[in-house]
Amino acid sequence: MAMKRTNMKDIAKKAGVSTATVSYIINKRTDQVITPQTIQKVEDAIQRLGYVPNLGARALASKHTKLLGLLIPQTEEKKKLMFSNSFYGEFLSSFEYEARKRGYNILISGTDVDESYFDIARKRSLDGIVIVGVEDEADIVGLKKNGIHTVLVDSYGMDKELSSVTIDDRNGGFIATEHLISMGHRTIGLATGYLTKEGVNTERLKGYEDALAKYGIELDGKYVYSGTVSYEYGFELGLELAQMQDPPSAIFATADILAFGLIKGLKQGGLMVPDDISLVGFDDGFLASNTDPALSTVRQDVDNKAKIAARLVIDMIENQEDRSNIVLPVSLVERDSVRKIG
Amino acid sequence: MAMKRTNMKDIAKKAGVSTATVSYIINKRTDQVITPQTIQKVEDAIQRLGYVPNLGARALASKHTKLLGLLIPQTEEKKKLMFSNSFYGEFLSSFEYEARKRGYNILISGTDVDESYFDIARKRSLDGIVIVGVEDEADIVGLKKNGIHTVLVDSYGMDKELSSVTIDDRNGGFIATEHLISMGHRTIGLATGYLTKEGVNTERLKGYEDALAKYGIELDGKYVYSGTVSYEYGFELGLELAQMQDPPSAIFATADILAFGLIKGLKQGGLMVPDDISLVGFDDGFLASNTDPALSTVRQDVDNKAKIAARLVIDMIENQEDRSNIVLPVSLVERDSVRKIG
Repeated sequence: MAMKRTNMKDIAKKAGVSTATVSYIINKRTDQVITPQTIQKVEDAIQRLGYVPNLGARALASKHTKLLGLLIPQTEEKKKLMFSNSFYGEFLSSFEYEARKRGYNILISGTDVDESYFDIARKRSLDGIVIVGVEDEADIVGLKKNGIHTVLVDSYGMDKELSSVTIDDRNGGFIATEHLISMGHRTIGLATGYLTKEGVNTERLKGYEDALAKYGIELDGKYVYSGTVSYEYGFELGLELAQMQDPPSAIFATADILAFGLIKGLKQGGLMVPDDISLVGFDDGFLASNTDPALSTVRQDVDNKAKIAARLVIDMIENQEDRSNIVLPVSLVERDSVRKIG
Repeated sequence: MAMKRTNMKDIAKKAGVSTATVSYIINKRTDQVITPQTIQKVEDAIQRLGYVPNLGARALASKHTKLLGLLIPQTEEKKKLMFSNSFYGEFLSSFEYEARKRGYNILISGTDVDESYFDIARKRSLDGIVIVGVEDEADIVGLKKNGIHTVLVDSYGMDKELSSVTIDDRNGGFIATEHLISMGHRTIGLATGYLTKEGVNTERLKGYEDALAKYGIELDGKYVYSGTVSYEYGFELGLELAQMQDPPSAIFATADILAFGLIKGLKQGGLMVPDDISLVGFDDGFLASNTDPALSTVRQDVDNKAKIAARLVIDMIENQEDRSNIVLPVSLVERDSVRKIG
């Protein structure tokens, strides 16, 4: 079934004027002289027939669709969006709200490995796009070259070419690790996502290394555990750690979701947090204070990050504003998952 | 900056043919005789220039946009999507994945109280829409009347007019409450979202009432606690219960997120689950097994619900399939949040 759409012709007929006159009024053309009576007749007809402009057709004329793309690259082929990580839910929630207040809708898409951001932007006539966690520079070049309003979130490497919002990931890794050191820990593991050339995990690893170096602790590669940023991987790693002869006395997990899985996996393997192993997470989503033990973690303001990303891209679209690169601060939240030792 | 899009004219120039010929080939018109050599020339030009069809323009012609709307009504004015409830994240994740596999993108929108679903569908030329948790019948009538392919999820009342996917909410409320009764509880509270005329919370309440009636326990309105379906409301209620002279010995919470807040609020108020108050949730999201205590809850298969919703709406669009109403089963998962008493 095709839907019946009231068009300008219907309005014109109802109002007893020409279709051109209706178009002039709807498009607020100031180069045409139209009497107030005619405007009134057309507005009455619009009210009665319930005309809603077709943004698809309008976009072809004005080149504005008021549609933003929120693209979330998939690191593995044909994968679902990782929405079990509440980070994405919190981000989307704030981003959609901020955009909606300014009259924009959101097209959300996981992008498969073989898909180009530029193709999506072009196919869907997006006014602008926000990409969360980009790792493929090649693709970004196409966006830049074609002048598509783009904001990168949590992406490294291309942030000097395009607008971006990041947090101080490296410092986050540093303060998490320094906190564990200050509590007496000397064998400190790192649980993280895949370590690519550039990316948030790699930055947090650098911060971890900075802290070890500052306090003269040698970096031992066997303590760096890397997998997917998921509850499942954290759980699996927790079970493994519980079976090791000599596990580290503390872990810095680069995402709360990894820490949640770790707590459960360690427990299943017979080790308690913080009695047997101390733990610091990263994100401070709303659940961090609700796990048992409550999680010490590096706090980032996801709500604000999403708001800023939405504002940046809309300001670029509407006001032709220039590129901005924004780095938001992080801080340590101490709760109950770290024990003082030694 | 406007993006430079390769159009049919560019292709025609490159291939040395007319624009009409390019259009015939791109649109696979069979009523025109075109030589294989010409087709080859045009296809080469397309390859070299990187032509991507503008789905906006194409949609105007074919009436298909391959764009689905996922609409999440807001029960309060100007509110953010409730993505702190992992239900929505899990739903979106599966829905987007299923749709993407079939070549569709997702427009996601919270709809404000004063916004019509039909207006969004029309403005955005959506091929179909899926609405999660509708409570306003008036608006749905417009969709039905205008023949917009629609699937309602977790919605009651209009499911005989449109396609729908629900779970057996009433039975879920029944088995949760019956379980608490079988464990010796006689004063059983209900923590739930706002109770509208029709809706999942109201169905779960009916199931709760069914179980009380079956076992001859009188329903006492003072034990029915209703607020937003949020961690915050659960927490607040937990604090209140902890201060009551005579709180119920058990609570059935109609969403896990309420149960998580309750555990924390009760604990802060000095009461432990299940030692002081037993608790059964609803959803069985991935965190239910990770809280402490692990949560006994009513399991629904959100992943499958989302997949089915995507398939239903796409089958209606592509194969003109008729209305279906699907009800998925629920089951009780016993963990550690219920204590046997009496």
